[in-house]
Amino acid sequence: MADFPIRFGIIGCAEIARKVSRAIQVAPNATVSAVASRSFDKAANFAKANGFPPDTKIYGSYESLLDDPDIDAVYLPLPTGLHLKWAVLTAQKKKHLLTEKPVALSVAEFDQILKACEENGVQIMDGTMWVHNPRTHKMKQFLNDKEKFGQLRTVNSCFTFFADPDFLKNDIRVKPDLDALGALGDAGWYGIRSILWAADYELPKTVTAFRNPVLNEAGVLLECGASLLWADGKIATFHCSFLSNLTMNLTAIGTLGTLHLTDFIIPYQEHQASYTTSTKPGFNELVTGWVQLPSEHTVTVDLPQEACMVREFASLVANIKKNGAQPDKKWPTISRKTQLVLDAVKASMEKGFQPVEIV
Amino acid sequence: MADFPIRFGIIGCAEIARKVSRAIQVAPNATVSAVASRSFDKAANFAKANGFPPDTKIYGSYESLLDDPDIDAVYLPLPTGLHLKWAVLTAQKKKHLLTEKPVALSVAEFDQILKACEENGVQIMDGTMWVHNPRTHKMKQFLNDKEKFGQLRTVNSCFTFFADPDFLKNDIRVKPDLDALGALGDAGWYGIRSILWAADYELPKTVTAFRNPVLNEAGVLLECGASLLWADGKIATFHCSFLSNLTMNLTAIGTLGTLHLTDFIIPYQEHQASYTTSTKPGFNELVTGWVQLPSEHTVTVDLPQEACMVREFASLVANIKKNGAQPDKKWPTISRKTQLVLDAVKASMEKGFQPVEIV
Repeated sequence: MADFPIRFGIIGCAEIARKVSRAIQVAPNATVSAVASRSFDKAANFAKANGFPPDTKIYGSYESLLDDPDIDAVYLPLPTGLHLKWAVLTAQKKKHLLTEKPVALSVAEFDQILKACEENGVQIMDGTMWVHNPRTHKMKQFLNDKEKFGQLRTVNSCFTFFADPDFLKNDIRVKPDLDALGALGDAGWYGIRSILWAADYELPKTVTAFRNPVLNEAGVLLECGASLLWADGKIATFHCSFLSNLTMNLTAIGTLGTLHLTDFIIPYQEHQASYTTSTKPGFNELVTGWVQLPSEHTVTVDLPQEACMVREFASLVANIKKNGAQPDKKWPTISRKTQLVLDAVKASMEKGFQPVEIV
Repeated sequence: MADFPIRFGIIGCAEIARKVSRAIQVAPNATVSAVASRSFDKAANFAKANGFPPDTKIYGSYESLLDDPDIDAVYLPLPTGLHLKWAVLTAQKKKHLLTEKPVALSVAEFDQILKACEENGVQIMDGTMWVHNPRTHKMKQFLNDKEKFGQLRTVNSCFTFFADPDFLKNDIRVKPDLDALGALGDAGWYGIRSILWAADYELPKTVTAFRNPVLNEAGVLLECGASLLWADGKIATFHCSFLSNLTMNLTAIGTLGTLHLTDFIIPYQEHQASYTTSTKPGFNELVTGWVQLPSEHTVTVDLPQEACMVREFASLVANIKKNGAQPDKKWPTISRKTQLVLDAVKASMEKGFQPVEIV
């Protein structure tokens, strides 16, 4: 497959595109073929700064890249407010789509993107990297182990980072016309995804936003959280913020076991990643200590998680392109569920923090 | 001071009394002088099983122990529903009082206990052990460090354990006439206390219970949680349960730093205890790893935390007894605040999970 790598065009030279374009170059079945910016010079500089192959095509407009017949797939790191327009156009141009998260400003918007993808037979996947880390698969095996983990009862997920004054003034993630979902879209997306992941993507019955959202003057969320409830009694909470020290904790507790890690989105180290599990620990006779400590597990990560993501996406695209397969439904379904819960958090805020049913 | 140790009488032979009576024997300024049960034989057996000194007095009724003039202080491990009666009587008999948590069924009840203690000039302290661990003091230094931790923004606290069928059927903590506060009183107490501890015991403005409490057939809470909000934008959440695997996580996030530990109530090991801190960690250039990992700190614990608690209590009692000092106000104030928040969680449930103001 590496002989015929999936040829990516990158639309927009966002910060995150540096990391993902490296991943495209590192993934065994993908290659960077073109990069577009609204400014030719910016695109050219981006290609140079990121060590793209010399024959990478440089475009001074997104449209011209989309018209290139030698591009198989587009990586879309544009601000969320621009996703609808460019994602739909990408699909209409029969390019497969790897899009940054949040996938859209709302499920209604995302459904338009999905419709365009379906009508044009193209694959769509969102850019949530950590779910592609081999560690994540190992952790899922633990959660699925009825004897070691039991039945999932609760999840707590937290992603915060302390944005500097420049970020809080100028970053696209605090601008209502660019990334209008703010911290909820940027950081809360991961919290929601991690909860759904732990719950085998079973949607909660209700979502209730916490009463403390912090907004900037333009009304963009800088900090918020919510609780998610399932019909079977499971409960999950997440908290996201641009205003607190960098922290990314995930804890999933079952009847018999606990999964815990403190770097779930971006592992501390690129080439190995750890997590802890415990199964039915207990106390010593006088309850002055534990008889069994959580065990730490370390997974070797041969390919960086973002390259694993690109490899997975390119593999699905190759299957369509070479074998005439249908686009995979799993990933867009997961994206949509994440967005659905995200929408419910916003709706709960708008309804005075009352619970919102997920339908 | 060890020459004149504070003489404890233990009222009730609960499981927890085994651990605390050992602590009384281990603490340098305390001694077990008497034990009472409603059955003389039970008290005698308890004294024997726990290696009490041969001259320990055995009483077949609580009243007779309280009438013993050679007892300075009482340790009260009785079910919460019996606290009001026996705590007030203890105070009236001029005995100082170390009482198990939750301190009462409500703040209204606890205020009656406090009134009796004040009127009789006796010290009261609750049996929350972990706050007396030397680790806790070290962690507090970190939280107080404006350069390493900044300003507290959020706390998440979780204490769950998986109760077996016998516990869920027979334990006093699931009985409405004994420990009517169930998991909230037994496990949630620690979550609330840890949040208040991190917040320097500043009370939240509002408390909102999560919408998922699980109750048994008798209406006793088996699982619940809540969010706490402060006027300055701080938010904290806790979750407690008898229905999930043993887990005790505490995370406090400030603007500049994060404190985290996974054994905050009962350290994994008795003689040393650890926690992690991080201050302004960041990512590497491509955001594929962290440039600074959380650092682990280990504190040597010479005296078990429950013995530290007894030592602190006995020291306050000795100061009253020998120096004519006034009873200390700090510990009862902390107990009362914990109970106040606990009451608010219950009130929020009763009000359909609406926020309850703390006044």
